[in-house]
Amino acid sequence: MSRLSEFALIAELFAPLAKSQGAFGLTDDAALFSPRPGHDLIVTADALVEGVHFRKDDPPQTIARKALRVNLSDLAAKGAEPTGYLLVLSLPAHIENDWLRDFAHGLELDQKTYGCSLMGGDTTSTPGPLTLAITALGYVPDGKMILRAGAKPGDSVYVSGTIGDAGAGLAVLEGEGAHLSEAVREHLIQRYRLPTPRLILGKQLRGAASAALDVSDGLIGDLAHIAEVSHVGIEIEADHIPRSAALRALWGEDAVRAATAGDDYEIAFTARPEEQIDKIAARAGVSVSRIGRVTKGTGVVLLDAARREIAVPRPGFTHF
Amino acid sequence: MSRLSEFALIAELFAPLAKSQGAFGLTDDAALFSPRPGHDLIVTADALVEGVHFRKDDPPQTIARKALRVNLSDLAAKGAEPTGYLLVLSLPAHIENDWLRDFAHGLELDQKTYGCSLMGGDTTSTPGPLTLAITALGYVPDGKMILRAGAKPGDSVYVSGTIGDAGAGLAVLEGEGAHLSEAVREHLIQRYRLPTPRLILGKQLRGAASAALDVSDGLIGDLAHIAEVSHVGIEIEADHIPRSAALRALWGEDAVRAATAGDDYEIAFTARPEEQIDKIAARAGVSVSRIGRVTKGTGVVLLDAARREIAVPRPGFTHF
Repeated sequence: MSRLSEFALIAELFAPLAKSQGAFGLTDDAALFSPRPGHDLIVTADALVEGVHFRKDDPPQTIARKALRVNLSDLAAKGAEPTGYLLVLSLPAHIENDWLRDFAHGLELDQKTYGCSLMGGDTTSTPGPLTLAITALGYVPDGKMILRAGAKPGDSVYVSGTIGDAGAGLAVLEGEGAHLSEAVREHLIQRYRLPTPRLILGKQLRGAASAALDVSDGLIGDLAHIAEVSHVGIEIEADHIPRSAALRALWGEDAVRAATAGDDYEIAFTARPEEQIDKIAARAGVSVSRIGRVTKGTGVVLLDAARREIAVPRPGFTHF
Repeated sequence: MSRLSEFALIAELFAPLAKSQGAFGLTDDAALFSPRPGHDLIVTADALVEGVHFRKDDPPQTIARKALRVNLSDLAAKGAEPTGYLLVLSLPAHIENDWLRDFAHGLELDQKTYGCSLMGGDTTSTPGPLTLAITALGYVPDGKMILRAGAKPGDSVYVSGTIGDAGAGLAVLEGEGAHLSEAVREHLIQRYRLPTPRLILGKQLRGAASAALDVSDGLIGDLAHIAEVSHVGIEIEADHIPRSAALRALWGEDAVRAATAGDDYEIAFTARPEEQIDKIAARAGVSVSRIGRVTKGTGVVLLDAARREIAVPRPGFTHF
């Protein structure tokens, strides 16, 4: 097996990613975060398991970047600005040096893009599939964290970007859409492999959104979490769910499939008034669509153009 | 399969462990840590993989507690006081509700003992072995974190508790020591399954220890990390390495095996003068042994009673 020793791996590939003083070049037991005056620290953790969250043949660079980005996406939805992350890597024997170099390079690219750095973690062997757990930390001004609880009847419901692309990308990797152009297929696959955390939008939504979360398990299923903890109902108009041309080429007008596919890592949020959101979207440089409204009811209802309810048999992905 | 759904699992078993306001009852994307004035936040992450860090037949309660305790042990060695932790749990299909209830109960017991609570995390399925990653957070007064770098020639080297018991416990589980009494075997197995994070000692060592770490991979191998980052040498007297009667019953006077077995989760540290350390140990209610001294050299040397060097072929555990 061609593999650096555990300590050489950390020293050669990961220590260069530890750019903050509090990471001690990954030579200590723990990392130090000095408090930023007037700020709270927001902390989130998400795991990626080979064969569950990514495919074995996905490029190491996008696996690394996706693992980091799904965590940054959680920070984005809370209005937080990332500062650092810890990486727990459980490596099966077949992973070799070249793979690890590409993996570390992927992290390096995204650290630069998103302004954060590796602070610590753990590297272990595993007899099972490659498993990554990242804990990401970010700052938000005191009291400005955007919660899931907070949506109020009368608020509008919004979502960033387009919905369903990532799920469609996974479907393409699994054999759907063989008749489509290479460009369409690639666009969808890329959306699956490399989500875009909406950090600038999240920051702009501080004080403007009444509730927010990132869409990871499916738009309908995730909005149900906001409805539940905010004690409100949510009505979504199927026709208003933003969908890309590539997605329509694969799945046509099937809004239910798009809104339950998951892996979008867009921000869904509630807010009013609408003019403010248009300005925020323009400043953040990302499209934001109004897709529905908050009601006094409970749960999430998907409506067609005639306001008839569309059945949603499985609102989102669950692991078991 | 008898298993709660993913959301029911979180609501029924894990939400009751989320006692801090910033955990939002595990209903949000991320946790909030309000800064404690005058303190730094210390963050550490460690993974446990079934078949690597624990045995499949270990009780779920001790698996949970060990996962938490190995992280608290890192905080202890840095002089930090735990506040909360995030749990990433990758569950194979064979794990059932009873197992999960015992697991959660184990966390609950240790939360009470060590004064911390669950703040968030992630639950996923895995086709591989059970894998847990915990990220623990703790506070230390500004500038008082105890680093690995800081040992100075002339300092004494100390270690808490006894060394080698956990490695011996694993050996017993793997078939060694069948001739020993049940009590001896149980003592060693318990030390393997349930380490004791030395949190009170760690707190007392703030400002007194020049360097510290927790012994996880083997005493000699871990002290080599202090030697390396402090740019010093370390001499250890084999006869002074504290060993329990149970360990001696299994491995006799074999100091090398004890000092390289790993999984001890004791604190090894450097300090002077000696009287101060005696008082600290008494206040912390834990035995502390002086095992050697810091020199101007490099690396770690193990010496016998005649000050002859004892060969250490493999100073500590490495994953690859």
